[in-house]
Amino acid sequence: MDEKILLSHGAGGRQAETLIREEIIRPLQNQWLMRREDSAVMDFNGKMAFTTDSHVVSPLFFPGGDIGRLSVCGTVNDLAMAGAQPLFLSLGLIMEEGLSLSVLRDVIASIRKTAETAGVAVVTGDTKVVPRGQADQLYINTAGVGKIPEGVNLSATAIQPGDCLVINGTVGDHGLALLSCREELAFSTTLKSDCAPLHDLTATMLKAVPAIRCLRDPTRGGLATTINEWADQSGCAIRLWEKSLPMRPEVLAAAEMLGLDPLYSANEGKLVAAVPEEEVDRVLSVMRDHPLGKDAAVIGQAENGRAGRVVMTTILGTSRMVEMPAGNPYPRIC
Amino acid sequence: MDEKILLSHGAGGRQAETLIREEIIRPLQNQWLMRREDSAVMDFNGKMAFTTDSHVVSPLFFPGGDIGRLSVCGTVNDLAMAGAQPLFLSLGLIMEEGLSLSVLRDVIASIRKTAETAGVAVVTGDTKVVPRGQADQLYINTAGVGKIPEGVNLSATAIQPGDCLVINGTVGDHGLALLSCREELAFSTTLKSDCAPLHDLTATMLKAVPAIRCLRDPTRGGLATTINEWADQSGCAIRLWEKSLPMRPEVLAAAEMLGLDPLYSANEGKLVAAVPEEEVDRVLSVMRDHPLGKDAAVIGQAENGRAGRVVMTTILGTSRMVEMPAGNPYPRIC
Repeated sequence: MDEKILLSHGAGGRQAETLIREEIIRPLQNQWLMRREDSAVMDFNGKMAFTTDSHVVSPLFFPGGDIGRLSVCGTVNDLAMAGAQPLFLSLGLIMEEGLSLSVLRDVIASIRKTAETAGVAVVTGDTKVVPRGQADQLYINTAGVGKIPEGVNLSATAIQPGDCLVINGTVGDHGLALLSCREELAFSTTLKSDCAPLHDLTATMLKAVPAIRCLRDPTRGGLATTINEWADQSGCAIRLWEKSLPMRPEVLAAAEMLGLDPLYSANEGKLVAAVPEEEVDRVLSVMRDHPLGKDAAVIGQAENGRAGRVVMTTILGTSRMVEMPAGNPYPRIC
Repeated sequence: MDEKILLSHGAGGRQAETLIREEIIRPLQNQWLMRREDSAVMDFNGKMAFTTDSHVVSPLFFPGGDIGRLSVCGTVNDLAMAGAQPLFLSLGLIMEEGLSLSVLRDVIASIRKTAETAGVAVVTGDTKVVPRGQADQLYINTAGVGKIPEGVNLSATAIQPGDCLVINGTVGDHGLALLSCREELAFSTTLKSDCAPLHDLTATMLKAVPAIRCLRDPTRGGLATTINEWADQSGCAIRLWEKSLPMRPEVLAAAEMLGLDPLYSANEGKLVAAVPEEEVDRVLSVMRDHPLGKDAAVIGQAENGRAGRVVMTTILGTSRMVEMPAGNPYPRIC
């Protein structure tokens, strides 16, 4: 019999206690969770990065990942983009009445595995159960705390004309992989989400090239949105080169079929770095030596020009504006 | 015209950017949020408390509070129960398509006001929009970071036979106030939620009586659940005295009408302290001098006996077991 989550699992009594102890604390166990107090307590000395992300992805399981892996990677990557070593995560589960317990188990197992890979511990958490029809099975919030090494101070405001923009691999995989497996759209493809924790790649990059100005992961809104944010925040113009953008043929094909631009498709295992031009070869070299940076490429450059302007030199040699998305070009995936 | 949240507000483009800038960052502004990076960055040295809570309360506005105030208080109080000074909050908003912008504004204004009172800053956040019919208008996750002063080390495992249990005021207000204003149950009452930030009361108590063993806020599941958790974790038996429990006549009346036990009703501005017997007068005295502790009372005592056993001496002088709630005695309010 498939066991289900009931409203009583959210009522704070014996059933909630058993669920939390057996299905969450036991698989994720660590010294902090075991204390069972409302707060985790740990020593921390230095510069702290603190971030949060809610995950409302549909479907919960998709090619290349699931909501558990995504929740850990999303927060780990936000910390990594601040140059931090991710250390501690909180886990807030909002479960829909009727959620299958086996689904919850699979998600928690995925959280455990991804957290192990990322070297983080889930140290505190919360569960809520909402009535059937709400919460689309499961929403997950993760917040995270990481430690920024001495001397690391990344900010989009540090980007200067001449700085090169480097990406660690192909663009658009996550968003198009998710759309390809949605019931209403399902089509056959070998596309997979790129969902991966980037903390080790960023640590390697920052150690080799402390002069890196800024890192960011182009998630919701895609690469186009990240580059527009950087152009706004740095007061530079930015030029992208279409021919340099790493892109899988399957991504291009799926995007064409759906009439979508992969530049606006979410990535969950990608980062962009802004790097002084004289350091770019060194950055590329350490990135390409890393499993998550094999396809690293220089994709553009900050330049003098109207602050906030993003232009792409197309394959044909013409220029086109790359705007911040105005409406909702992509079907909702998160 | 009443503006509404649209799916495009969650798509990571221009509309999302405007919403976040104008409706969230502007009202909550502080040096960390203004940076607009994915992580907030701050210095931290010492013992850290880290906690999280998701809020799925219905209705969003209720007598004595709203989901915004509740979100801040919930996390502030979890930190305070670890003996920490609350410092930084994250804010994860999951909004339902169609949510009225004026509702969002009122909630954010309430968050701002409560955060100011509690001396915490919302330093990082995330917004998601889910399709109409999900998320019951608005869910809020808050995670929090606080600093525990030197020498403070609270734990339920420190509770010993003879320790007195002290509460700062009346029991059951929040849960019954919420039920009293639910559409399906609405009845006329003057009941209000006790929702309040307890950090200042706990700091005052710990400064006056460093020997306090443990603090906890009896939220979901009510006082009965908290006392049962303490009995389990400390390995003591615990006795409560019914005649000493502060309770409003309106709470008692509402509970009787609904056939509910106020011991299982959520509180959002209450704490229980376990205190060595010789310190209890001192604790009571500093609590009663504080606006949030005027009705402080000794409600019970840890004793030798079967670990985990909670017994109440009733007004009639008989004894009754107080169990962890097994099913779902209370209609869902969070």
